[in-house]
Amino acid sequence: MSVSNLPDSINRRIVLASRPVGAPTVDNFRLEETTVPVLGEGQVLLRTEWLSLDPYMRGRMSDAPSYAPAVQIGEVMTGGAVSRVVASTHAGFHPGQRVMAYTGWQDYALSDGSGLTLLSDTLAQPSQALGALGMPGYTAYAGLLDIGAPQVGETVVVAAATGAVGAMVGQIARIKGARVVGVAGGAQKCEYAVKQLGFDACIDHRAADFAAQLKAACPRGIDVYFENVGGAVFDAVVPLLNMHARIPLCGLIAHYNGGRVESDASALLRRVLTHRIQIRGFIIFDYYVNRPDLHAAFQHDVAAWLADGSLHYQEDVVQGLENAPQAFIGLLQGKNFGKLVVQVCA
Amino acid sequence: MSVSNLPDSINRRIVLASRPVGAPTVDNFRLEETTVPVLGEGQVLLRTEWLSLDPYMRGRMSDAPSYAPAVQIGEVMTGGAVSRVVASTHAGFHPGQRVMAYTGWQDYALSDGSGLTLLSDTLAQPSQALGALGMPGYTAYAGLLDIGAPQVGETVVVAAATGAVGAMVGQIARIKGARVVGVAGGAQKCEYAVKQLGFDACIDHRAADFAAQLKAACPRGIDVYFENVGGAVFDAVVPLLNMHARIPLCGLIAHYNGGRVESDASALLRRVLTHRIQIRGFIIFDYYVNRPDLHAAFQHDVAAWLADGSLHYQEDVVQGLENAPQAFIGLLQGKNFGKLVVQVCA
Repeated sequence: MSVSNLPDSINRRIVLASRPVGAPTVDNFRLEETTVPVLGEGQVLLRTEWLSLDPYMRGRMSDAPSYAPAVQIGEVMTGGAVSRVVASTHAGFHPGQRVMAYTGWQDYALSDGSGLTLLSDTLAQPSQALGALGMPGYTAYAGLLDIGAPQVGETVVVAAATGAVGAMVGQIARIKGARVVGVAGGAQKCEYAVKQLGFDACIDHRAADFAAQLKAACPRGIDVYFENVGGAVFDAVVPLLNMHARIPLCGLIAHYNGGRVESDASALLRRVLTHRIQIRGFIIFDYYVNRPDLHAAFQHDVAAWLADGSLHYQEDVVQGLENAPQAFIGLLQGKNFGKLVVQVCA
Repeated sequence: MSVSNLPDSINRRIVLASRPVGAPTVDNFRLEETTVPVLGEGQVLLRTEWLSLDPYMRGRMSDAPSYAPAVQIGEVMTGGAVSRVVASTHAGFHPGQRVMAYTGWQDYALSDGSGLTLLSDTLAQPSQALGALGMPGYTAYAGLLDIGAPQVGETVVVAAATGAVGAMVGQIARIKGARVVGVAGGAQKCEYAVKQLGFDACIDHRAADFAAQLKAACPRGIDVYFENVGGAVFDAVVPLLNMHARIPLCGLIAHYNGGRVESDASALLRRVLTHRIQIRGFIIFDYYVNRPDLHAAFQHDVAAWLADGSLHYQEDVVQGLENAPQAFIGLLQGKNFGKLVVQVCA
């Protein structure tokens, strides 16, 4: 049984079996069974309830230089989780508390308390700490407001519009008074972005006339393009960028599996020059370290927007740790619908 | 005689004869002789002494959408000039005064006084108002300090290192305590950048092992890349960009003549993402309009640096208005050595 409520003596964990060449396959992962680690002095034993799956994990599977160290072969895949404290010899934590921690793709983990964030027991939906109220939400909030800085009436375009980050970007832009145009894969996602998330329009990037449709949906051009995909979508955006447009760049999902993604730097740079455009890459980790003020504002605002219904938050829940590899592979192909999480135990 | 001291009845002017396809040729220009315009009420008659030739003029020859209107066929080529007031019915100007004005490629022009900047009669080298103390100097100063913001000990790389903008960028960066690496075409220019301009190194972009040489000259990577060329130089810079690098982008000379300039947006964007890089396009006109404070600081600083010898300023002087087209064509090929100006009359 994949979902259980009781700790037992087995710790299942998913390790990196081999490095992917191109798109990852299930063979790049291996499910191992070990014993539950034994609590030492000043430690906390955590039982994973929810595991977050995010595109950045593809980068960790490669040993190419990146902003974070690669997962080594045979090591547990990294990832954020919401967990219960099941045992503790640490003065700051006691059994029954719920925490957010980067303990990875496994049932149990030990912690010395560093990097643990205590979650309120009153949270109706604790897995939100991995999405709207967590790293993807803060990525959307910080990138959109600190770099994109949309003004009332400006046009904001966001790719992967129904994804964990994109859905937040578009809704926050709407709340701030911008015209919001999403880009997503397939009619169902596009309809959801408009009807559920309140976007003004959402264009299917698989359409043959995608560029023409995007142009029609942005009659006053594009002031902010929140970039997390790259590739052909970016190329269609470039000619529509307005004077003084801003491009927060937090991901390039289309590029993560390697290979040549055709994209013309020449056209991009010409537009950046003539239209005084700003492109800024950012990694949300920096905002956690350097901008506690912004993080506090994020927590306050998003909690309020969730509470009053102005923010809609949808999860794509996969049951069972053993299904994490297949779900992650689908994430890179855009198969998820909403923030992808794995329910590891109920 | 091409250089004359006395106004006469003939006004020579160089008009756009046809739009270039690719690199401009002399056939795209035509020298016309008209009569000197007749002064109306509240007007100033100007005699051009020095004409500035700058890469941005290539953009004005095309009717592709740009940040400034195109020169129309049969119209006088646009351009900045240092001129003498030869007659005036305008209360603010009187004969003998020297002004800077955008009156274009011609001997004489009328002005209603708008857009004229009075120059001090004590200027030892009035043509500096077209270079170190003018638009190219302010482009270097504003782009480097406001966007690039080099810190002491950081590495600044500048392309077209001996050009009007590049030479200023590198020297200001040196004055601010940065390590400065130039990129230029040919051994002579590289030697000049190091010996005369005080750069730490200067690499010949024509060298077969250019990328390797650039890497060796930047042992601590690149913190600021002042971009005004594009193309292959930029591609060699991308892998060397440091965390939080800044790229002020003020020109793309390699792209101006059109055609496909191979440059991989995919590699660029990946680097921008993983290294939290900022690219910002700017047009110096914006800084004139929006930042009078910065312009005042620029005028003060550059005048002081020229006076105390910490800034070296070199002009490439071409004699005679009729030689402007050929000189401009050479500018786009990197044939000039220093700020290119035409002495229209002595």
